[in-house]
Amino acid sequence: MQALRSVAVLDHPKVPATGEVAAEIAEFLAGLKISVARATTWDTAAAEAIIPNVDLVIVLGGDGSLLRAARMAAPHGKLVTSVNMGRLGFLSEMEPDTWRDVLPRMMAGEYWVEERLMLRTEARRWEKTLAVRDALNDVVIGRGTLARVVRLQVKLDGTPFTTYACDGLIVASPTGSTAYALAAGGPILPPTLHNMILVPIAPHLSLDQPIVLAPTSVIEARISTDHQAILTVDGQNEITLKSDDIVRVSASPLVARLARAQSQDYFFKSLMSRINGG
Amino acid sequence: MQALRSVAVLDHPKVPATGEVAAEIAEFLAGLKISVARATTWDTAAAEAIIPNVDLVIVLGGDGSLLRAARMAAPHGKLVTSVNMGRLGFLSEMEPDTWRDVLPRMMAGEYWVEERLMLRTEARRWEKTLAVRDALNDVVIGRGTLARVVRLQVKLDGTPFTTYACDGLIVASPTGSTAYALAAGGPILPPTLHNMILVPIAPHLSLDQPIVLAPTSVIEARISTDHQAILTVDGQNEITLKSDDIVRVSASPLVARLARAQSQDYFFKSLMSRINGG
Amino acid sequence: MQALRSVAVLDHPKVPATGEVAAEIAEFLAGLKISVARATTWDTAAAEAIIPNVDLVIVLGGDGSLLRAARMAAPHGKLVTSVNMGRLGFLSEMEPDTWRDVLPRMMAGEYWVEERLMLRTEARRWEKTLAVRDALNDVVIGRGTLARVVRLQVKLDGTPFTTYACDGLIVASPTGSTAYALAAGGPILPPTLHNMILVPIAPHLSLDQPIVLAPTSVIEARISTDHQAILTVDGQNEITLKSDDIVRVSASPLVARLARAQSQDYFFKSLMSRINGG
Amino acid sequence: MQALRSVAVLDHPKVPATGEVAAEIAEFLAGLKISVARATTWDTAAAEAIIPNVDLVIVLGGDGSLLRAARMAAPHGKLVTSVNMGRLGFLSEMEPDTWRDVLPRMMAGEYWVEERLMLRTEARRWEKTLAVRDALNDVVIGRGTLARVVRLQVKLDGTPFTTYACDGLIVASPTGSTAYALAAGGPILPPTLHNMILVPIAPHLSLDQPIVLAPTSVIEARISTDHQAILTVDGQNEITLKSDDIVRVSASPLVARLARAQSQDYFFKSLMSRINGG
Repeated sequence: MQALRSVAVLDHPKVPATGEVAAEIAEFLAGLKISVARATTWDTAAAEAIIPNVDLVIVLGGDGSLLRAARMAAPHGKLVTSVNMGRLGFLSEMEPDTWRDVLPRMMAGEYWVEERLMLRTEARRWEKTLAVRDALNDVVIGRGTLARVVRLQVKLDGTPFTTYACDGLIVASPTGSTAYALAAGGPILPPTLHNMILVPIAPHLSLDQPIVLAPTSVIEARISTDHQAILTVDGQNEITLKSDDIVRVSASPLVARLARAQSQDYFFKSLMSRINGG
Repeated sequence: MQALRSVAVLDHPKVPATGEVAAEIAEFLAGLKISVARATTWDTAAAEAIIPNVDLVIVLGGDGSLLRAARMAAPHGKLVTSVNMGRLGFLSEMEPDTWRDVLPRMMAGEYWVEERLMLRTEARRWEKTLAVRDALNDVVIGRGTLARVVRLQVKLDGTPFTTYACDGLIVASPTGSTAYALAAGGPILPPTLHNMILVPIAPHLSLDQPIVLAPTSVIEARISTDHQAILTVDGQNEITLKSDDIVRVSASPLVARLARAQSQDYFFKSLMSRINGG
Repeated sequence: MQALRSVAVLDHPKVPATGEVAAEIAEFLAGLKISVARATTWDTAAAEAIIPNVDLVIVLGGDGSLLRAARMAAPHGKLVTSVNMGRLGFLSEMEPDTWRDVLPRMMAGEYWVEERLMLRTEARRWEKTLAVRDALNDVVIGRGTLARVVRLQVKLDGTPFTTYACDGLIVASPTGSTAYALAAGGPILPPTLHNMILVPIAPHLSLDQPIVLAPTSVIEARISTDHQAILTVDGQNEITLKSDDIVRVSASPLVARLARAQSQDYFFKSLMSRINGG
Repeated sequence: MQALRSVAVLDHPKVPATGEVAAEIAEFLAGLKISVARATTWDTAAAEAIIPNVDLVIVLGGDGSLLRAARMAAPHGKLVTSVNMGRLGFLSEMEPDTWRDVLPRMMAGEYWVEERLMLRTEARRWEKTLAVRDALNDVVIGRGTLARVVRLQVKLDGTPFTTYACDGLIVASPTGSTAYALAAGGPILPPTLHNMILVPIAPHLSLDQPIVLAPTSVIEARISTDHQAILTVDGQNEITLKSDDIVRVSASPLVARLARAQSQDYFFKSLMSRINGG
C-alpha cells in the first residue's frame, strides 16, 4: 500500500497513560519524518479539525475510543488504527509494547485496509427527522429507566415482521457482533461480512432468535411504550424517543477503514482468547 | 377450609372495566350476605385501611395489580385471589366470565391456600439502610438509562462467587420465574417451590447460566458503575443506587397466600397455554 | 420468465395422499398440454431418470421430500417447487388447496427463481476421500449413539479456531437456519443470503455462540472420539467416521433453484406463523 | 464425625497412574493402621464385594469413576470420596498432590457428609418393566443414531404437560446440573438442593426453558419415534427403547453420601474456576 506521511494521534482525556504513550508515539514518528497532529478523542471539534488533513488516525484507548474515532474519520475516508489501552480491545491493532514494531511498517506501506460496515440510523417522529447517526458497533432501541418492557413493531424491507416485547432491540454490524449483541445472545460475524444482525434483549414471550440480514436490508421499528424509549448509538450517544416514533436502520454509505498490519486471518485466530478474557 | 365472610374488592383506577366488574362482584357477594369493602389497588392508603379487616382480597386487573395487592396483604396474612383483566394473568384464578361460578364456592370454603415465597431485599450504603422491600416476583439490580454495563460482585451465603458485567441481575422467586426472569433466559419453577433464582440480563463475557438457590440462601451484590444503578422491586418500585452500594436478597419472613379453587395441578396444566399467549 | 412445458411430479411412497394429489396434478397439467412424468422422491433411479428432461420438478410431501428432490435437481440446474403435505413446510410454495391457482400461473411463466446456497461436504480419512455430498439444509458432525461428547478441532479458512466438546456441530445454509440449527440455538437467515452458519449442539464448557461465515469460507473439523462419529447430510444421509477423520464444508458450486409464485418478501412475512406452528 | 477404620481404594483399569496412586494410598493408610481393600471401579463384582465391608470408598479417577462408585456405594449407605485424576473433577475432594494432607484428617473423623440426591428411573413397555436404574448425575432419553427428532410426551406428577420434539430430554439432579444439563442450557444447582431439573436438548419449535421440579415430583415421558430411542443413565448405561415405551423418573430412596473435608461453602467458591477450566 501507499506509504503514510501524516498522522493524528488521539488520546483519552481521562486516562493519563494514553497521553504519555501519545507523546512517545509523536516523538517516535517525528523521528521518522512523519507529520504528527495531536488531540483527544473526546474533544470532537479539535479531533475533527485535524483528521481531514492526515493519512492515518492513531487512537490510544479502548474500543470505545476507536468507535468514536472511526465515526469521525469515516466521512473523510481516513484510515484508523489503535493501540489497546482499554479492557478488551477487540478492535485494536497494537498493544503498548508492540507499537514500536508495528507503526514503522505501517508508515512504510506494509498494511492492508479492513473496510467495516457502518449502520445508518434515522429516528423519526411523524414527518420530522429527530436525528440521523452512523454507528460502527450497534444501534440499540431500549426502554428507559423503568423496568418495563418496550414494544417494538418491526418491519423488514417494508414488510411487517413481528412485535418484540423486550428490554430493547439491538441492530448490530459484524463489528458489534462481539459487543453488546454477544451479551444478548447474538451470533459472531467476522468483520469481512457486511450483514446486519437483529438481536432482542430479554424478549418476553416474543421471538428470541437472532436474525441475520442482508447488507441491503432496511429495519424499521415503531415504538410503543407507556414511558419513554432510548435510542443509543455505539453505546455513547442517546436520543430520547416516545410512542409512535420510528427508528430506521440500514447500511451506511460510509465505512470504517481500519489499517491492519497483522495477518488477514487474525479475527478467528484471536477471537477465543479475547472471549476468554486473555 | 373455613368459609369466608368478608372481602375487599380492588380495582384498577385506569381500567374502567375493572370498576364495572368490581361493582358487579360487590353486588353479587352482598346478595350472598358477604361483607364487601372497595378500593383501588393503586390507592395504597385506602387499600391498606380495609385489607386488615377482611377474609379475602379480590383483585381485578393484571399480574401487576395482583403483585401489589399481595404485597399489601402479606403482612396481615390475608388471602388474595384475582380476576384476570390484564394481558397474561399467570397469577390469576378467575376470568371475567368465570367468577360467578368460582366465588360462591370460595366463600363457602371450597378453596386451598397456595403459599408463595416472597423475597426480602435490603439496599445499604455503608452502614446505612437505604430501603427494605418485599417482592413477590423479583428484585432487579440494573443499570440506569445509559447503555453501559453495571458490574456486580456477588456473594452467595457470604462466599464470593463471581462478578457480572451485565445490564442487570434478577433475583426471582418461583412466582417471578415466569416473568422477567423467563425473558432473560431463566428456568421455570412451580409456585410450590421456595427456591430463589439468579438470572443475569445480557451478561458480557460473564457467567450466563442461571443459578437456583436454596430457600435459606442470602445473595449480596456490590455495585460498581461509573453512573447510577437502579433497584427495582416487582417492576414497580425503584430505588437509585450508586457504586459500592450493596443489595442483599433473601427469603422474606412473609409469604403471599393465594386462595385457589382450581385443582392443585393447575400450574403445569396451564403453563404452556400461557406461554403460547392463549 | 419463460413458460414451462414439462414437469416431473414426485410423490412420497409412504404417504398415499401424495400419490392422489400427484394424479390430480398430472391430469390437471395434461389438460394444459404440459408434459408430465411421475416418480416417487425416494426412488432415486427413477426420479433421476426423468428430472433431466423436464422444466420443473413438483414435489409432494414435506420439507424432507423437497430437500431430496432439490439435491437431485441441482446438478441439472432444474427448477423445483413443492406442495406442502408434511408437518411444517418451511420450504414449500403451495398447499393442497392452492396448487390449482398457482401452477397454471407458474406454467405460464409467472414465477421467479430463488437460488439457494447448497453446502458441499467432503469426509476424509488421511489421504482418502470417504464421501462427497451436497446438502441444502445442513451438515451435522455428531456423536454416535453413546451419550458421550465428541471433540471437534475446527479450522476456519485454514486457521485453527477452537475445539468443541459437544453432541455435534451443525454447518447450515440459510435454508437450514430454520431447521436443526434453529433448535440448537442458531440465528435465522433469509434464503437470499449465501452465508453459512456454525452452530454447536450442547457444547460443554466450549464456545456456544453461533458463528456466521462468508459464502467463501471453508470449515474443517477434525474428529476426536473414543467411539465413532456420524456425519449426517440434510438429516437423511449418514456416514460413519472415526477419530482423526476430517470433515470439510464449503459452498457447493451447485445451487438449489426454487420456482416461486408468491411475492419476494414472503420469507419474513410467513416466518412467524411457521415458527408458531401455524 | 466418627473415625474411619477401613477403606476401599478403587482405581481406573485404563489409567495406569490411578493404580500407582492407589498403591501409594494403600501403603500410606496401612501405615496409619487403616484396613485397605483394593479393586478397580470398572470391575463391578470385585468392587461390590468389598464396598459393604468398609467405612469409606476412595475413588481414583474422573467424575465418571466417582459416579460409578457412588452408585455402587449408595445401597450400602457407604461414604465415598475421590482423588481427581480426570479432566474436570467437579465432584472430587482431593487432587493427587493433596490427598496426603486430607486423608489422615478424614480418617480421624474430620469430615462432613454431603448427601446428594439420586434419581430413580424406570423404563416400561406396556405392563412390563424393562429396567430400573439409579443415577447420580442424570437420566437422558435421546434419539438413536439417526439425526431425527424424538417426540416425548411429558407428564409431570401425572398431569400432561407438553410434547418435546428434540434430540433428547435430560432429567438431572443438582449434581448433574454442572454436567450434560449445563451444556444443554440448564441452570446450576448447588448439591445441597434436592430438586430435579428438566432440560430439553435442541428442542425444535418446542418449549426450550428448563424446568426446576420439587424433590417429590414424578416425570413421565412417553416416546414417539419412527426409529429407536436410547435411555442413558449417568452417561454410562444404555437401554434401547421404542415408541410407546414410558420412562418414569423420580427421586431415588437412595442418596450418595460424599465425605468432604473442605469447607461447606466450597461449591460456589470453586464453581467459576471449574467452569473456566482451571
